[in-house]
Amino acid sequence: MTDHHDHRRVDPQQQTGSYKDTQFRGVSVKQLFPEDRPGWRGFVEWEKYPERKRIAHELLKTKKFTSIPEFQDGPLPKTNPILVGHRWKEYHEAVGLREVVDFSWEMVQKEKHDMLHVLDFPYNGETLFNYILDDGKLTQNRHHFIRNHGGVPDIDEDAFELEIAGLVKNPIKLSMKDLKDETKFPQSTVTVTLQCSGTRRREQIDEYPGDGDELINAPWGEGAIGTAVYRGVPLKKVLKKACGGVLPECQHLEFIGADTYFKKLEAYNYAVSVPWRKVRANEEVLLAWEMNGQPLPKIHGAPLRVVVTGYIGARSCKWVYRINALSEPSFGPVQRQEYLYYNQQIGKQNVLVSNGFSIQAMPVSSAIMTPRTKEVVVHDGKVTVRGWAYSGNGNWVERVEISPDGGHVWYACSPEDMTQKVRTAFAYSAIVTIRGVNVPFGFTLKHYHAWRLWKIEVPVDAEGWLEFCCRTWDSSNNTEPTYVRSAWNWDLHVTSSAHRIKIYSINRSKPATAKRLRQLEEMGQSLLPLTQPLEFTIEKFEEYEAAYQKYPREPID
Amino acid sequence: MTDHHDHRRVDPQQQTGSYKDTQFRGVSVKQLFPEDRPGWRGFVEWEKYPERKRIAHELLKTKKFTSIPEFQDGPLPKTNPILVGHRWKEYHEAVGLREVVDFSWEMVQKEKHDMLHVLDFPYNGETLFNYILDDGKLTQNRHHFIRNHGGVPDIDEDAFELEIAGLVKNPIKLSMKDLKDETKFPQSTVTVTLQCSGTRRREQIDEYPGDGDELINAPWGEGAIGTAVYRGVPLKKVLKKACGGVLPECQHLEFIGADTYFKKLEAYNYAVSVPWRKVRANEEVLLAWEMNGQPLPKIHGAPLRVVVTGYIGARSCKWVYRINALSEPSFGPVQRQEYLYYNQQIGKQNVLVSNGFSIQAMPVSSAIMTPRTKEVVVHDGKVTVRGWAYSGNGNWVERVEISPDGGHVWYACSPEDMTQKVRTAFAYSAIVTIRGVNVPFGFTLKHYHAWRLWKIEVPVDAEGWLEFCCRTWDSSNNTEPTYVRSAWNWDLHVTSSAHRIKIYSINRSKPATAKRLRQLEEMGQSLLPLTQPLEFTIEKFEEYEAAYQKYPREPID
Repeated sequence: MTDHHDHRRVDPQQQTGSYKDTQFRGVSVKQLFPEDRPGWRGFVEWEKYPERKRIAHELLKTKKFTSIPEFQDGPLPKTNPILVGHRWKEYHEAVGLREVVDFSWEMVQKEKHDMLHVLDFPYNGETLFNYILDDGKLTQNRHHFIRNHGGVPDIDEDAFELEIAGLVKNPIKLSMKDLKDETKFPQSTVTVTLQCSGTRRREQIDEYPGDGDELINAPWGEGAIGTAVYRGVPLKKVLKKACGGVLPECQHLEFIGADTYFKKLEAYNYAVSVPWRKVRANEEVLLAWEMNGQPLPKIHGAPLRVVVTGYIGARSCKWVYRINALSEPSFGPVQRQEYLYYNQQIGKQNVLVSNGFSIQAMPVSSAIMTPRTKEVVVHDGKVTVRGWAYSGNGNWVERVEISPDGGHVWYACSPEDMTQKVRTAFAYSAIVTIRGVNVPFGFTLKHYHAWRLWKIEVPVDAEGWLEFCCRTWDSSNNTEPTYVRSAWNWDLHVTSSAHRIKIYSINRSKPATAKRLRQLEEMGQSLLPLTQPLEFTIEKFEEYEAAYQKYPREPID
Repeated sequence: MTDHHDHRRVDPQQQTGSYKDTQFRGVSVKQLFPEDRPGWRGFVEWEKYPERKRIAHELLKTKKFTSIPEFQDGPLPKTNPILVGHRWKEYHEAVGLREVVDFSWEMVQKEKHDMLHVLDFPYNGETLFNYILDDGKLTQNRHHFIRNHGGVPDIDEDAFELEIAGLVKNPIKLSMKDLKDETKFPQSTVTVTLQCSGTRRREQIDEYPGDGDELINAPWGEGAIGTAVYRGVPLKKVLKKACGGVLPECQHLEFIGADTYFKKLEAYNYAVSVPWRKVRANEEVLLAWEMNGQPLPKIHGAPLRVVVTGYIGARSCKWVYRINALSEPSFGPVQRQEYLYYNQQIGKQNVLVSNGFSIQAMPVSSAIMTPRTKEVVVHDGKVTVRGWAYSGNGNWVERVEISPDGGHVWYACSPEDMTQKVRTAFAYSAIVTIRGVNVPFGFTLKHYHAWRLWKIEVPVDAEGWLEFCCRTWDSSNNTEPTYVRSAWNWDLHVTSSAHRIKIYSINRSKPATAKRLRQLEEMGQSLLPLTQPLEFTIEKFEEYEAAYQKYPREPID
């Protein structure tokens, strides 16, 4: 339990990086916005210094930034990264935090593997569909999606401290050594699916464009979801054992992250909150330092992050260094001005912060991962479909249904073809190995907070373009809206409608199709790409003449 | 009534143009495929010379051509021309017809004005939506859409002759002077809407890509339709008076155009046919030389074209120089292998010429021309919608309905707001002036073959993204399929489903919206582009704090 550092103490080494210090009104920017905690590289304390925030706003107002890209009215670039965060990089550079931009990308290279980079900075990357399926119930750390709102701070675990303040009996500071001391706090492992509330947002963008604020710089597909086993201490236990509990007025616990967040040219530390009743539910809010049996990667929030089960990923604050017990939700912009769910008729002409409700727990949703949309599927009358299904807030996925005809007929997956909760009798803290990763399992392990991967083989007679869709029913009997339009909203959050894909069906059990496929093979030609015409004449003159004689095109009388 | 020219007589002047003659197997290409009729520039006779066609095929097989562009899986280029007909230009050049490519584009410059060029060669251009509405019931010649299948031949009227052959009592050749001689043939004027069967094809492409054969080089929007008054002679009268009538076996009349058409590396003259029963219906099939009181433009088929009422535009053969009376439909590829309507489950894996039916008469269809899709519409509770409606085969548009809510509520246009048929008492051959154009009207004038333009003001309370759609009921009580999917077909023809557009509604009769609009005006900011975020904070801290106190975000117990 360490002392609070003097924020004015600036390590001069930090000013001699590869980026030149600049001046604002005659003062060094690095002096104005110091990275003043030794061992906390890329961290500036904003929330305790209103004057520092005011100066940053004044400074940012004097700058020109790259304009916000328009990508909603056309197709997304086919590049990887899809989008480049010029504006965000410039914000960071303007306040002397350019190093954090580079460090963040270094961490992508080091800690992640083969991601779809949706935005290079702040880093947002989604898991490729094949890893979602192949990794199985637990997503490998290097494949797990990331949705960051700022740079990745580089904090030495030994120098780290967590401060707990606000409506608690005893405000306190804790080192990582304190937190990891099992004699002080009992540890837990929880299997948790985390999901960005923007998952599958592209479907909403395709339907109608929405809010173009910085928020939207994450045009996610179906891969902004992943599941891992986290180890840490339940926040409830820390509040009780280290702080003597919360005061009766406490309603929300606010988490402040060491990353810098910009909103309308103001600088903040990332801040969000969850209700006390959620924290009170024991393992549902964890302070975690381990992910799938490995030290938490820096890009995922090391040395310490919050993991909130069943809620949008945004509440699982990374690099959490301060927790405030509050009488109401955090006033941070991420909590109050973003992740809001608006009525469909609210838009740019009438949107207010107060007419959206705050997205906390996630609804039931699912996605087809294979086949891919617009895929040409050659089959013999049956097509295998695979994907994920999830419901938040402790609701368990009970049933997944697939329709091969756009939503008329629905086939249910067999329980054997859905990943299961594990009814384990392992002793507390037993270690099991999952795909080479040592994962601790114990009797406190719950899987109510995890997705289920599923597969099913559906009968498909028809050929040509078909619409496949899936929907899920959870343990509260919730299911998904029918169409994207049903739940389209201005901020393009929570695309939980039945997931629809287009497939081009080629049923080779049909004689005419089998004949054409043989003909193609003999001629060394391909059906792909589908829109490229066949080079040969598909029907000889004599053949269509004979067909015409049999079925003349027009009546005579 | 002139003699048939000797096809071997080649004018050497024609070989000294700006393009060098080439050789194939030691013979000059201009000799192999001669433009052998004086005064018929850009014309090669293919249909009478199977050997010439065979050689052309051999020659084309030795060449490499620019590959067919892929434009169905992504967005259409935003260029004008949208697509460039490299492959078609190369075909023409290969057989010595490069001059016709240039001449065609010259005619675009000379005879057309401000078109959306869908393909530069063969020239396909659509009428911009504003001209469709502003020109009114009759589209100006310079704005009228064009769907050409080959180059524009440049034929001197004095040198022209029309040959009528096949199952007629007396085969004959007619000069333009013969045809225009009112003592020989009574003349007619008919007001006709012509439409490409590909109109609104983009909606089908957006839904699912289809056949990528040359055919698809016309990714039309809503502007491949137009209406004009044509003057000429009914084909029925010519067959009767000049040929002594058709023989009893005659079922179809084939029209051969002077343009060259390529299909799977074979060269043809453009050839299509319509049933004898259609021709027999008097003014329904016209041989025309005048369009809206002006000489027929070259790009529209001068000196002579066919105008077939109520049928797809493809049957209204331009530069028609031979008519064959046949016992069955033309075997030309345009008639037999294209403009076929397939079942939705027919595609590349099983398509045959004989499993599509031939598209002749057009069904009822309509389109909203304003607002434009994705338009932001600021209004006071009512939105004006305008467009066209048409039905083929002599069916008259009886009712147009607009839904401002995606197809739940339908408002009907008032008859006052729809263009009318003209109940004229004018004497035969009277001339009336329409927008400075002298148009002949007479008692034979029928408007059963014309579209109706319409407008309506619909109540719109809701704000945000709305789907507007229109549908039409014709005099046979036909109406339009509900969704594009309902009638999607492999060749992407006849997009006649209810036309749907997305509009973003801003209802300034709503107090919150009016306030935001005033705020924007005061701050010199715009709502457009819609996806660009507002620069100011939309709700002050005190305001959302007050709103929070009034309606706390979460229950306490």
